[in-house]
Amino acid sequence: MEQQQPSRTEIASLGEFGLIEHLTKNFELHNASTILAVGDDAAVIDHFGKQTVVTTDLLIEGVHFDLMYTPLKHLGYKSVMVNLSDVYAMNATPTQITMSIGISNRFGVEALDEFYEGVYIACEKHGVDLVGGDTSSSQKGFIISVTAIGEVAPDAFVKRSTAQKGDLICATGDFGGAFLGLTLMEREKRIFLENPQIQPDLEGEDYIVKRLLKPEARKDIIDFLAENNIVPTAMMDVSDGISSEVLHLCKQSGLGCRIYEGKLPIHESSRNAAFKFGLDPTVCALNGGEDYELIFTLKQEDYDKITFNEEISVIGYMTEMEEGCKLLTKGGNTFDITAQGWNAFAKQ
Amino acid sequence: MEQQQPSRTEIASLGEFGLIEHLTKNFELHNASTILAVGDDAAVIDHFGKQTVVTTDLLIEGVHFDLMYTPLKHLGYKSVMVNLSDVYAMNATPTQITMSIGISNRFGVEALDEFYEGVYIACEKHGVDLVGGDTSSSQKGFIISVTAIGEVAPDAFVKRSTAQKGDLICATGDFGGAFLGLTLMEREKRIFLENPQIQPDLEGEDYIVKRLLKPEARKDIIDFLAENNIVPTAMMDVSDGISSEVLHLCKQSGLGCRIYEGKLPIHESSRNAAFKFGLDPTVCALNGGEDYELIFTLKQEDYDKITFNEEISVIGYMTEMEEGCKLLTKGGNTFDITAQGWNAFAKQ
Repeated sequence: MEQQQPSRTEIASLGEFGLIEHLTKNFELHNASTILAVGDDAAVIDHFGKQTVVTTDLLIEGVHFDLMYTPLKHLGYKSVMVNLSDVYAMNATPTQITMSIGISNRFGVEALDEFYEGVYIACEKHGVDLVGGDTSSSQKGFIISVTAIGEVAPDAFVKRSTAQKGDLICATGDFGGAFLGLTLMEREKRIFLENPQIQPDLEGEDYIVKRLLKPEARKDIIDFLAENNIVPTAMMDVSDGISSEVLHLCKQSGLGCRIYEGKLPIHESSRNAAFKFGLDPTVCALNGGEDYELIFTLKQEDYDKITFNEEISVIGYMTEMEEGCKLLTKGGNTFDITAQGWNAFAKQ
Repeated sequence: MEQQQPSRTEIASLGEFGLIEHLTKNFELHNASTILAVGDDAAVIDHFGKQTVVTTDLLIEGVHFDLMYTPLKHLGYKSVMVNLSDVYAMNATPTQITMSIGISNRFGVEALDEFYEGVYIACEKHGVDLVGGDTSSSQKGFIISVTAIGEVAPDAFVKRSTAQKGDLICATGDFGGAFLGLTLMEREKRIFLENPQIQPDLEGEDYIVKRLLKPEARKDIIDFLAENNIVPTAMMDVSDGISSEVLHLCKQSGLGCRIYEGKLPIHESSRNAAFKFGLDPTVCALNGGEDYELIFTLKQEDYDKITFNEEISVIGYMTEMEEGCKLLTKGGNTFDITAQGWNAFAKQ
């Protein structure tokens, strides 16, 4: 399943600076705020009259991704997207990124070109400038560290801690797809490792595979909110599953919540895949990670403003802390919501 | 030589968010521009009327540091310093950092506490706020990714590419010490591995050990330049050795240079250590890395302004590109300067 490279240029033949030049030469600058980009000790950014948002993520081979079923181009794209998703979750507009990579000598320049092609597409799509980074060797595995910078009008950023009792809890897109894509890929990987003759069977599973390999940061939602003068009371992105993130919102806002199982947006392809794997679609939506959707809270009087946007679902509401964080099932039962999101440390 | 931990708390017992809270709870905010720090999707920074500088570095165990002789507290300190050094090299003031770490399960919480103690001291010393980061497990080794953000008055930043013919080349502090410290530590490590009974012999070598393990970003120089209204024509920090960095300045400015061997600042302790190891102190200064000093170029008429600062040495001057980049030795010979700086890729 791993892509074979038709030719291979040793990275050492370019040297670190040659490599950086090679990898970044096609990146154009989009933001007037980008005064100086790659090629000096640091980038320079001009944010007069705006506030700067900064976020960072570390992605490590074997922990966050498996190159056996992750094409490098998708990996480059995704490693940018997961950071942009954090910027949008602040109600901000991403403007610049830095990209650092640590690579073992099993990668040639062609492999890195593929990776940077994905980085490039993601940057172009969101009008983001690559302004710096670091390239290094690693003893083992591929290591990616991205920092994203964005801007927001003074005090227009939206935190996690400012939800109010009675606010509606809204979720974008749908959930569980990326986790089901991962489940599928892990199954196909096991089959492949047992018998390399068998080609992977991804027939009809395009949707969940795409959800895993090519997540899209929700710029469209941030644009929609701005165009309609909607200011969420709190917001965050969903990287670890709805359960885990809703608990963050509640804890940081000092509130409780009610989530309706029947309101959780789940794509038909995800639902079908869940049944095929013998999994409960609700559990996949609640605890599966990596959907990179947004959840936000909204004053009840703003409900009319979002009702015609099919990408936004109201899934519940905020309560007093004392009422706890509860899931109301379709069958009329009530369960405590528990964080079963992905814990990088517990999984070792 | 490796420090033993008296007690050990498993990281998994805290969870990722508990760990972040635990590690960052003592960090106080220093900068009015820090609107929102750790604990949300992204940090928020207000840089009205200033330009923002951003730089990032990836440090990987076994490539950039050896935990056998690098105490974790020093490692935390150094991983911040190397990034602040890049910010100062832009003539900017560092204001915020993000710190991401990837850690294997051989580390307990106490080990991370030590690391963050070093991070804390570095941040306090330079008035920098820790505003975010990411913690993750790694399959192997300790991975550190730091992004530093700084501010600078509009267009007051200093690039590498703007040196002029005839400008003086200035260097701060002294060179070769960190490389000699590394040479010493590697020697002691070999001896220790051959015979663990033998304790390391670092007698009288405090200076070079400190240069390796506890580099200091040159805030003092940036302050001095500002106080004396000195604006370098070009500047960068020295992480890979003078040769390599001077060649960067020349290439990016489209110029050549003359460097005088006799003017290279080398500490007496470094000189003595070099002789003891049978190394040429000049070669150590030119090609040894990690001194984290600054080199900058200056108009000749500004010479009087720096002459009484003992931390600044004039080591040469810029020429036309056609004249090449040459070292003039004490013996009166002329050699081409070649980059023998540390190449992470060639070393594999």
